[in-house]
Formats: sequence, C-alpha cells, structure tokens
Amino acid sequence: MFTITRPTLLLNENQCRKNIQRMVAKAKRLNVKLVPHFKTHQSSEIGEWFKESGIERITVSSVKMAEFFADSGWKDITIAFPFNIYEIPAVNKMLKKGINFTFFVVDEKTVERLNQELTASVNLFIEMDAGYGRSGVSTKAIDKVKRIAEAIYKSKNVNLYGLYCHPGNTYQANSTDEIKGIWAGVILEMLKVKTALGKAGEALKVRVGDTPGCVIVEQMDGVDEIGPGNFVFYDLIMNYLDVCSEDEIAVAMACPVVAKNEERNEIIIHGGAVHFSKDHLFDDNEEKFFGEVVILEEAGWSSVVEGIKLVSVSQEHGVLSASPDVFDAIEVGDILGVLPIHSCLTANLMKSYLTFEGNSIQHLESL
Amino acid sequence: MFTITRPTLLLNENQCRKNIQRMVAKAKRLNVKLVPHFKTHQSSEIGEWFKESGIERITVSSVKMAEFFADSGWKDITIAFPFNIYEIPAVNKMLKKGINFTFFVVDEKTVERLNQELTASVNLFIEMDAGYGRSGVSTKAIDKVKRIAEAIYKSKNVNLYGLYCHPGNTYQANSTDEIKGIWAGVILEMLKVKTALGKAGEALKVRVGDTPGCVIVEQMDGVDEIGPGNFVFYDLIMNYLDVCSEDEIAVAMACPVVAKNEERNEIIIHGGAVHFSKDHLFDDNEEKFFGEVVILEEAGWSSVVEGIKLVSVSQEHGVLSASPDVFDAIEVGDILGVLPIHSCLTANLMKSYLTFEGNSIQHLESL
Repeated sequence: MFTITRPTLLLNENQCRKNIQRMVAKAKRLNVKLVPHFKTHQSSEIGEWFKESGIERITVSSVKMAEFFADSGWKDITIAFPFNIYEIPAVNKMLKKGINFTFFVVDEKTVERLNQELTASVNLFIEMDAGYGRSGVSTKAIDKVKRIAEAIYKSKNVNLYGLYCHPGNTYQANSTDEIKGIWAGVILEMLKVKTALGKAGEALKVRVGDTPGCVIVEQMDGVDEIGPGNFVFYDLIMNYLDVCSEDEIAVAMACPVVAKNEERNEIIIHGGAVHFSKDHLFDDNEEKFFGEVVILEEAGWSSVVEGIKLVSVSQEHGVLSASPDVFDAIEVGDILGVLPIHSCLTANLMKSYLTFEGNSIQHLESL
Repeated sequence: MFTITRPTLLLNENQCRKNIQRMVAKAKRLNVKLVPHFKTHQSSEIGEWFKESGIERITVSSVKMAEFFADSGWKDITIAFPFNIYEIPAVNKMLKKGINFTFFVVDEKTVERLNQELTASVNLFIEMDAGYGRSGVSTKAIDKVKRIAEAIYKSKNVNLYGLYCHPGNTYQANSTDEIKGIWAGVILEMLKVKTALGKAGEALKVRVGDTPGCVIVEQMDGVDEIGPGNFVFYDLIMNYLDVCSEDEIAVAMACPVVAKNEERNEIIIHGGAVHFSKDHLFDDNEEKFFGEVVILEEAGWSSVVEGIKLVSVSQEHGVLSASPDVFDAIEVGDILGVLPIHSCLTANLMKSYLTFEGNSIQHLESL
C-alpha cells in the first residue's frame, strides 16, 4: 500500500460498489424505488457509482448538500429534513436550474410560505412519525395530517407527493426480528393515514428511510420507495445490529501508532474525536468503545483483531486497550486500521477518502 | 443582526479578546510564559489577536495544524502530541523555512529517528503523565525518563527543552479545589523528576497545559510555561467546572427552528451532531444534554434560558425539550442560540465563525 502518514479514511471501493449494487438489486426485486440518501458519503464521485447503477433520484439532509449535488449534475433531489423557511432564496436559485425538488413539511405555515415564495413548484412529503419520536407528524395526529394535506391541495406551487417515515428506532433494535416488527408497524400506520385521507390518499407515495429496515425487511408491500444512506459504507453499529457482516464495512481509518504504555497495556494512536466522532458502542462488560482494530493489508484489511479496542478518544488522541499478547505485537510506527462506530459522522469529519488504488475521493466539506 | 439561514457559529469577538487578554495578564502576573494552544480556534485571524497581545510562541496538536500556522507566519511552534515519525518529511520541509519546533517524545526510538532524519535541530519535551492516564511517561517511571533524557543528550539534532504535563483529569474535577489539588500534585511530581535527573534536570522547563488549571490555579511556583487552549472561547463544560462564567463563553451556534411537537413539548432545530459534536453533560436528573439555549440579540446573546435544553442530536437534527411556557414562546422560523458543550469540537466541525460585525473568520479546515 502507498504511504500513509496521518489519520486517513480508507475506502474499499470494490466493497462500496457491491453494497450499492446489492441495495439496487433488492429494490428491484421487491419492486420499490431506491432514492438513496447521500448524507453518508457526501461525495460526487461516489454519487457517480450510484448513477452507474441506474439511480437518478437522490436524498440529502440539508439545502447545502442539495446545492453540492445539484452542482454535481443531480436533477431530482429530496431534502429529508423539516423544511427551513430561511432556505427559500437558496432553493429558488436552484429551481432556476431546473432541479426537481421534494421537501418535508410538518406544519401548514411552512406550506403557505413555500407556496407564496417559491418561484417554481416542488413536491412535498408530509414527514410522519410512526413511533421513533424525533421529527415528523405523529401518525396518530390524523387531524393535523389532514390540515397539512388541505393546505397543500389548495396551494399552486406545492404538490403533495407522499408520506415519508424515518423509523430511526430500528438503530436501537435488539434483533433483526424487532427491525422487521418496527417496519410492519410503520407500514400499517402509513396505510391508516392514507385511508384517513380518502380518495386523495390513494395516490400518495410511501417512502421509508432507515438502513437497518431497508436491508433486513423483505415484506415491503405498502412501501413505494426507500431512502437508506448508511449502507453505502456500513459501520460497527450496523454490524452490531446484524444488518451487515464485518466484511461489508467499506471504510476503515488508518492511524499511526505513536506511543505504548507498558504499565497499562495501552497504545496511543493519532486518531481521535476529530477523526472518528465520539459515537460509541458498549462491549460485553458495558464498557464504551469507539472503534475496532483491523490489520491493514496490501488491498484491504483483516477481520477484527480480538483483544484490542479503541477505548477512549480526545481531540486528536485515541487510546487502545490491548491484551498482553496483542500489546506486544504492536510497535510504535505501525499503522493500524480502525473500523468506525458510525461511518456517517466519521466521513463528515474526515472530508476525503483514499481508495486502495491510491485515488483521493473528495467529500462536500473538502471543496 | 444580519441574516442567518443555516447553523452558524457566532463569535463574540469582544469577549474572545477579553479571554485572551485575561490569560496573558495572568501569565505575566504569575511570571510564567503563556504558549497558548491553538487547537481550539484553529484560525489564523484569531491567532493575530494573540499576536497583538504579545504572544510569539504557540502550541498545536498536529503537524497539519503546524503547517497551517507556519503558513500564517508563526515561527515558534510546539506540537503537543507524541511525535509521529511518519511526519518527519513534513517537518523537514518546515524546518527549511526556519520554524523553531518543540516536539513531544515518550520513548527513545523516536528520539533516535528524529536525530537521524531531521535536517535541523529541534527542542523536545518529554511528555509526562502525573496521573491523568492518557499519554506521557508516568512520573513514577524515573528510569524510563532517564533513558529518554540520555538518548536526547547524546543526540546532535535534538535538544532536551523540558517536561510537559497535560493534567486532563482537571476536566473531571468536582470542584475548583480539586483542580488546585491536581496541579499541586503535578508540580510536586515535576519537581521530583527534575531532581532525579540531577544537574541536567535543573535547566529543564516545566510546562502545564490544561485550561481549568491555568484559569483556577494561583500557585504556579515550579511551572515555567503554560499552554491552555480552550479559554479562548470557553464552553459549557468550563462553566460547569466553575472555570468560567456563562458570560465568558465566546461562541454560540445560531440554529433555525424548523418544527414544533406539541405532544412532547419538543422543538426541532437545524443543528445536530455535524455541528455540535456529540459531547454532552448531565443535568440534575442525570439526563444527557448537548447544549443550552440563549436568545440572540443585536450584538450578543442572553443568559441561558431556563426550562429548555438540547436533549438529543442526530446528524443534522437537534431536539430541544422545553417547559410548556418556553415551548409556547418559541415559533417555527425563530433563530435560537445554543451554547456548545465542547467548543473545540464544535469549532472543528463548523470550520468558520461569524462575528457580530458580520465578519466571517476562517478555520483551518475551511481553507
């Protein structure tokens, strides 16, 4: 492998392309449209790999990200975030370039502002909350959904496209069966809302957005579109949930070993909170950890090394705790691989990727 | 105030300059040299404010940051991180430009590599651990310190400058007295190490690096230099530790309110983990929170609003939990201020600052 001198986010391009192709194939098989979320990779080059698989419509989580991908040539963009009315001028600029937008709304006032101030029409999802409890209108609040739908129907510049649900509670599921159960509940709730909206409800598209469900669930009747993002790289959270195998994780951080502490069997790497983020999992002893170690190879990395974990991170420091055997096998000057807990936040911090072929792939924030 | 449309890190320049001046004055009063850490602000413009206060020597936490500040005209730079031997070529490039470097070493091999491969001489700190337990040679491991010192003495290209200790355990202190106690212990340990090194030890400079201690401690006999960083902005952690008042916090995130959830008295802002990081504190009920709310004013912000806290963050979403009164007073379309838990990580994510005068100040990563 080429020379690495600093914390560097390695991308297994081959695995990443496989992850994309598998999700494309699954969507085809289950007859749902894949509108992938690009918040995980935030890269125009990785976006092209989706295009090569036939993807034309994408999802992002901010207007800034929409601007970036509009500049990269994408023409159909969903902004999966309750619409922020201060972004109307920025959106109007993009509408001039012929971008086809779909926004989230969760109240009538935002519908009115959009209708009054947009210079071209857009599609709207009513964002629904089927139990996750973050954003979205509760599926129990049928009257509110009706009021929002009516506000949209009587507006010229906005078109009610469908109902969107991000059941983020799948990330806390204790089993893949629980993930399936959450989705079954979401589908039932979406159907109830559609029914409550009467004739108009029938035409509405239902889109569901989480990676765990999109990977695990095979029963998608009642869902028209899926919008997962994390599957492009996966990470240790997805592996922990049995949503992906360790092999399917497509990113690893290369970190130089800078010190060893013999008294504590600890190893210090350059690789901290500004590289990984502070997301963590808990091990069997309920101790936090921030990453798992792999051995970097010519074109890839090993499976997870047992007996060592990234147990703490400060701004630039990472501390690995190791068993005596593993400790002895690692030297100052080694470059270790570390699988990230949460690849979305890690990629957002690192702002570029290095492939095994030595290509540097850029991320929104690096431009 | 000028128009804000997206999460924006506001900088109270006036307060920031006061924070700098106060630390400069304290260092003068206690007759220690201030060699401020620039990892918190990572800004060449804010660096100039230090220069205006007479600062000529600075500290950074990576070679990348050293490159940035060398390009900004700084000539004397300490890299406060166990030296990573892969960075020798990058350092040699900077040495050609006449930068005066001070590095951290924690083993003899790194000393040998530096001596063999550096193209000009540098100063070295032996990084000491007086009980924090992250990096650094334990102050109890006198034999190891002696071996490293001897390796340095017999090398041509490296000069033993001193002993550096970052007692990061002050960040977990339960009182300012505990902070003072930690420092008293550090000073005692440094003195013991110097004594153990005999005649050669007498000339060694002792530098201590944490903001809590540098602010709180008045008894600094035995310390020659201090290297704090966070004090430039402070944050809620520092306020929680009684190291700063709320008024001294010099940064706040402006976040648009995008949704209200009446059933749960929750407010959704654009402002999440990619803006704040996931650092958190615990409230009186042992519940995590990720920021405190302030009301933005023409040139500043209010004191912390009671009855509302940032209780969760995902990638772009922030969820505020509010008392009924506070909930009713906030509308979709408001722009709220949020004081960050940990300003270093927040600044690193935001990559620029906006002053009340409307000046955009750039951070390393934005360039």
